[in-house]
Amino acid sequence: MSLKGNALIAQSGGPTVVINASLIGAVDAAREAAEIEEIYGAIHGMDGILHENLTALLQEDPTILQGLRTTPSAALGTSRLKPKQADLERALEVFQAHNVRYFFYIGGNDSQLACHLVSQLALQSDWEMRIMGIPKTIDNDLPITDNCPGFASAARLAASATQFVAKDAEAFGEAEVIEIMGRHAGWVTGAAQTGRREDRDAPHLVYLPEVPVKPEEFIEDCRAAYEQYGYLVVAVSEGFAFAESERVTTSDKVDEFGHARLSGVAEALSGVVEEALGKRCRTDRLGNLHRCFTYTASAVDLEEAYGVGQVAVQQAVAGENNQMVIIQRQSAAGEEPFRFSCGLTPLTSVADIERTVPREWINERGNGVTQEFIDYAKPLMRGTGEPTPLGLPSYPRLAGHAVERKLAPYVRPK
Amino acid sequence: MSLKGNALIAQSGGPTVVINASLIGAVDAAREAAEIEEIYGAIHGMDGILHENLTALLQEDPTILQGLRTTPSAALGTSRLKPKQADLERALEVFQAHNVRYFFYIGGNDSQLACHLVSQLALQSDWEMRIMGIPKTIDNDLPITDNCPGFASAARLAASATQFVAKDAEAFGEAEVIEIMGRHAGWVTGAAQTGRREDRDAPHLVYLPEVPVKPEEFIEDCRAAYEQYGYLVVAVSEGFAFAESERVTTSDKVDEFGHARLSGVAEALSGVVEEALGKRCRTDRLGNLHRCFTYTASAVDLEEAYGVGQVAVQQAVAGENNQMVIIQRQSAAGEEPFRFSCGLTPLTSVADIERTVPREWINERGNGVTQEFIDYAKPLMRGTGEPTPLGLPSYPRLAGHAVERKLAPYVRPK
Repeated sequence: MSLKGNALIAQSGGPTVVINASLIGAVDAAREAAEIEEIYGAIHGMDGILHENLTALLQEDPTILQGLRTTPSAALGTSRLKPKQADLERALEVFQAHNVRYFFYIGGNDSQLACHLVSQLALQSDWEMRIMGIPKTIDNDLPITDNCPGFASAARLAASATQFVAKDAEAFGEAEVIEIMGRHAGWVTGAAQTGRREDRDAPHLVYLPEVPVKPEEFIEDCRAAYEQYGYLVVAVSEGFAFAESERVTTSDKVDEFGHARLSGVAEALSGVVEEALGKRCRTDRLGNLHRCFTYTASAVDLEEAYGVGQVAVQQAVAGENNQMVIIQRQSAAGEEPFRFSCGLTPLTSVADIERTVPREWINERGNGVTQEFIDYAKPLMRGTGEPTPLGLPSYPRLAGHAVERKLAPYVRPK
Repeated sequence: MSLKGNALIAQSGGPTVVINASLIGAVDAAREAAEIEEIYGAIHGMDGILHENLTALLQEDPTILQGLRTTPSAALGTSRLKPKQADLERALEVFQAHNVRYFFYIGGNDSQLACHLVSQLALQSDWEMRIMGIPKTIDNDLPITDNCPGFASAARLAASATQFVAKDAEAFGEAEVIEIMGRHAGWVTGAAQTGRREDRDAPHLVYLPEVPVKPEEFIEDCRAAYEQYGYLVVAVSEGFAFAESERVTTSDKVDEFGHARLSGVAEALSGVVEEALGKRCRTDRLGNLHRCFTYTASAVDLEEAYGVGQVAVQQAVAGENNQMVIIQRQSAAGEEPFRFSCGLTPLTSVADIERTVPREWINERGNGVTQEFIDYAKPLMRGTGEPTPLGLPSYPRLAGHAVERKLAPYVRPK
């Protein structure tokens, strides 16, 4: 049962605010495990494995390692490399050359698939080893797990920034479209709605990629909200498309996985809004900030990320193999503080599978999320303390004590 | 000398993170002044004045008023209305109808001009009143004053976000262009450089609108920085243009002042970078977040903004008229903590005058700011406390303990 040797850990795909917490969780657990001699880090993910670009993590200054726990983005470096069969074979060769008996891969759907394929190859060989996936994605689109480390912090950025830009739009009495990450899954965009406390608060309309909406309904809803509240804030996923239309993107480029680079939906919608309202409509795009804006880190997210890293190592040492660590919610929906435990699921159950927002968690009109969604997301989004509040931003408004008019109405000269 | 009556206060132009602190500073001082009976707020700036859309601020719940001190964006509402002669005459009529003897206008260059014109009109009439400008602009382009309330918080957002996206770019070994506000003045963009602690830190190149740069030098500098550091972060002002080229903007629209809406310089530069490096270059644009992202508020900025509001009222009551409050630095350049006092300057000395970054505070090559700039800006950018640190974000990197390679180099199959 006991398998002695080295461990290798790699970070893969888009970083998150908390991906280093998972790295340090794993390193801390590896230090405690008698079975693990050295824990190597792969520089720039799979790329570092293939080219034997490895670093010995236990030789690092412990102060640096602890500081990394709250450092955004992948401290080891990451890559979007999609491994081919030859790459997988090379990876196994590298494992053997460096007596790597434990491999931990921190990543999303694509990475969990790579993880599973390496694992299959190892099983077919005579190289005994244990391979574990550590979940990570701001998109929150891995199945089985309650949520994915990285999501809650991105969600807190989206919800906070939406409240902030809404204040600016309200001050002008203007419209605003804020573009939030999410290609096929609208988890982060939906979470932006958790900051809305009363009807006049933003975001008034929330559009996810899961539900195509008719342009005429969009226009109708924008007009109604603007009419009612005197300003308008629309939150939209980068992957949103109108019904029977192509997704909007201003980029003709694709990434390493052949996915089109998305960008420009906010610009496109703002044009529609300006025409509908006859009012200026501004845009903001949170872009890469979702993955690195530490000031809006979720305390739950940091704890989860560290935990899944630890558990991956502990369970591998205990004999588990070809599994991904999952988060299991122990508190009720909507209950705070959020409580969780970690479990395992076979890599095959998550590899390359995307979990989008359930249709019933999006309202019928497709312009907002339901209370069930809010109860799911909000407990995850707890902050780390003042001045970044534990809850989401909430600010007073003037009650307004109108002063009686004394003059005839004024008509501005043209 | 003593002039008894009501006061009116209005917020104008783009909001800031701290513009409400100035409002509350003025309200608090007005409450203390025996000469001021009621302080009215104009709803949506000049627009509210013209249409007598006023609210009685002393009737507001004090808890709400104190909460507004740290609420981003203009609580009274704002507008970009540029007053015509008839508007100025109407404003005076409204002042008379409501016994307004004190008028306070919180704004930037355009607004200080409007303020001065109203003041001139009042002087020519038999309506005795006192008019004071309260400085506000994230652009930091008002002359005479050491700095402008609103700037330091926008600068802290720019510097922080640059550090964050840099971590993401470094993790991938990619390039990034971050677009920062500043049409003619590069103060906020230059301030993004204050977060750079060592050469390999971002931003590696910083481009201000004050200095046109030759495209070939830009390309050369991008290549050199990427070569040296393995990643590249460029910070650029929205108003930047290459030498002998038009400013880049994807928008064909203009604002109420006839200024072209700017946007798109990051996209344009990223195309140049991708061609130069043969590497992906991402973009981010901080956009409206500069004006409202409270989590990166500067503690100095909050204090200054409250102070200039207070002093405007106190000095008006003491008999001053047709002046703008200014910040006078009492600490030395580069010295922290920053200390200041408030003074006055005639409105004519600031109205419609733009202060750009002095040429000698930008390096010769035009790709970064000098130590003098850093010594000017950094003391202003002190944070409000953990977890938003007092200083700027600083994170450890792994020292790196390379593991000896054991295999022949790997060549990936095509």
